[in-house]
Amino acid sequence: MIPSKKFMTIALSAAKKGCQNGYGGPFGCCIVKKDKIIARASNTVLKSSNPTAHAEINTIVKACAILKTHVLDECVIYTTTEPCPMCFSAIHWAKIPIIVYGTAIEDVKKLGFNELMIKAKQLKISGKSSVKIIGGFMLKECEDLLDFWKNLPGQETY
Amino acid sequence: MIPSKKFMTIALSAAKKGCQNGYGGPFGCCIVKKDKIIARASNTVLKSSNPTAHAEINTIVKACAILKTHVLDECVIYTTTEPCPMCFSAIHWAKIPIIVYGTAIEDVKKLGFNELMIKAKQLKISGKSSVKIIGGFMLKECEDLLDFWKNLPGQETY
Repeated sequence: MIPSKKFMTIALSAAKKGCQNGYGGPFGCCIVKKDKIIARASNTVLKSSNPTAHAEINTIVKACAILKTHVLDECVIYTTTEPCPMCFSAIHWAKIPIIVYGTAIEDVKKLGFNELMIKAKQLKISGKSSVKIIGGFMLKECEDLLDFWKNLPGQETY
Repeated sequence: MIPSKKFMTIALSAAKKGCQNGYGGPFGCCIVKKDKIIARASNTVLKSSNPTAHAEINTIVKACAILKTHVLDECVIYTTTEPCPMCFSAIHWAKIPIIVYGTAIEDVKKLGFNELMIKAKQLKISGKSSVKIIGGFMLKECEDLLDFWKNLPGQETY
């Protein structure tokens, strides 16, 4: 599977809009089925007072509502940063077979987010998950997003 | 901290009601702050077509909405089964300092749920989390809940 720049660009754009509006951290996501976008979302932890409202969780919930199913087994998830263990496991429960991400958990830990430092690949191995993980995709653009956030006034980590 | 039978009984009751009504798996949870119940919920994966709607996530979302915060650092979470990696990480993000659970992930894996087989204690160590974990609390009652579910007509795993 060759990841698509178009879909990561949509995830980046959701992330930028979200953090510009103070919804939450600089994270965006989109879910694609047969080359069609089903849903996109940013992190909204701060706006919604919901610690589980990461971009991936928000996008999975939206995509499932649209497709009226709790199974997304024909989908690909694009996310600007490597999924944290919560989001990785949500992707597993949703049976999404492919994850494409840009920056790594280490990069956002450095920004001050309270990440559990467990890599998606490590969880895949420990949990015997069959999900395929493609990391570092459009890395420069995803790094630029983190820099954009760093320069925003009044950013908040959690 | 000595866990309270009263609060686990409330989590058990939420779980029983949820699976009896076909909302999702046999899992219930409640969140307590200074000996006062803030929120309770069952798993609603099937009812809400939402693979992230585990009892713990539902209860965290409710408690945060009630307390108008994304931080539950003075709370205890009671859950009938050991949190899966998604829920463990959600508890970490919510900064809940104590988890009390009954049955283990292995017990529900046996029932057919697609668990990532990673123990909460293992995630705590790998992720350097400070959360305190008390497992096997009211084990007999939590096992009885799983037996109750096994004997329900038309149960569905995911």
